[in-house]
Amino acid sequence: MKLKGKNPGKLFVFSGPSGAGKGTICKKLLEETDLELSVSMTTRKPREGEVDGVSYFFETKEGFEQKIAEGNFLEYAEVYGNYYGTPKGPVLEKLAKGIDVILEIDIQGALKVKENYPEGIFVFILPPSLSVLRKRLTGRGTETAEAIELRLGETLKELSYIDKYDYCVVNGDLDEAVARVKAITVAEHSKVTFSAEELVESYKEEA
Amino acid sequence: MKLKGKNPGKLFVFSGPSGAGKGTICKKLLEETDLELSVSMTTRKPREGEVDGVSYFFETKEGFEQKIAEGNFLEYAEVYGNYYGTPKGPVLEKLAKGIDVILEIDIQGALKVKENYPEGIFVFILPPSLSVLRKRLTGRGTETAEAIELRLGETLKELSYIDKYDYCVVNGDLDEAVARVKAITVAEHSKVTFSAEELVESYKEEA
Repeated sequence: MKLKGKNPGKLFVFSGPSGAGKGTICKKLLEETDLELSVSMTTRKPREGEVDGVSYFFETKEGFEQKIAEGNFLEYAEVYGNYYGTPKGPVLEKLAKGIDVILEIDIQGALKVKENYPEGIFVFILPPSLSVLRKRLTGRGTETAEAIELRLGETLKELSYIDKYDYCVVNGDLDEAVARVKAITVAEHSKVTFSAEELVESYKEEA
Repeated sequence: MKLKGKNPGKLFVFSGPSGAGKGTICKKLLEETDLELSVSMTTRKPREGEVDGVSYFFETKEGFEQKIAEGNFLEYAEVYGNYYGTPKGPVLEKLAKGIDVILEIDIQGALKVKENYPEGIFVFILPPSLSVLRKRLTGRGTETAEAIELRLGETLKELSYIDKYDYCVVNGDLDEAVARVKAITVAEHSKVTFSAEELVESYKEEA
């Protein structure tokens, strides 16, 4: 029964408040599964050791703006004078080959991706509690206590976008969260995404 | 974050053509997870060793018919003069306690359950191919070759109900099928089933 092979790859979008641990979860997924990371495009200069097409797709400002005009991004944003975005083409190519693609992105970006690719599967990574999030952010040692409290207030606001997401995973224990995310990727490939006629035909072909 | 505890249990309905292996998969699930089997009610006499409330709920014909009249079944059928059915009460009690319930049932039964409890999660167990199904049925040695061919024709008809189901799992390799079913149960508990307000409140309570 070759129905599984008919399904194209799926786009899994991981998003959530800063400090929830979406980056760590995605890193584990890349190490432990066949899912592949979406490569971003940017107009900033490559840093030493960065490889075009791997770290980022590096593009000129004019080239980037033309791609925007042509609707070639799942999402993009301008940060400190540089563009960053997720080009649509490379993602769709992987999906067509049956490869699942991971996109790790902030909440605003995820909402734009959802507009442009609603078939994506949107997973919200949550911190176990605000007090744990406070500890994690304090542990980084990069922000003042005041800045952290502001950020926690921001986090509460971000939580209100939860209803745009399909799944939520609380990242208390990392291994448990990764197992849960893997289960989501497996379950999504078990969804009924074909018609009864297609199913019957696929059985008759092999009978 | 106690949101997970707010979710009630879920009803997983496993169904599919005879010989697809839904019984074996459910047995493994019961051994390896916390899911609990729904106990059927019947008007047939208990056999030696059968325990009321465990093997079946044993009921008189009058009692059963009164429960039918009161709408107390998720589904029921009459087979050779005896009633068999899935009483609603015990299932709902388990779900309210947060226990996931397994219902293993033929396709006609599953469709009735869906009418009465559309919140259920409906999983179609598929044989890997008609030729494998033919081998399995032949291996049982309980039916003639002609009867088996009739049954395979019936199976093709049953496949047309696939679009009433949420998930389908091909049972070629049993361990793989069980792993996939487990993933579905985990993923279903990661779905966003609460409002943004509920989520924000639950964080504020713990902050």
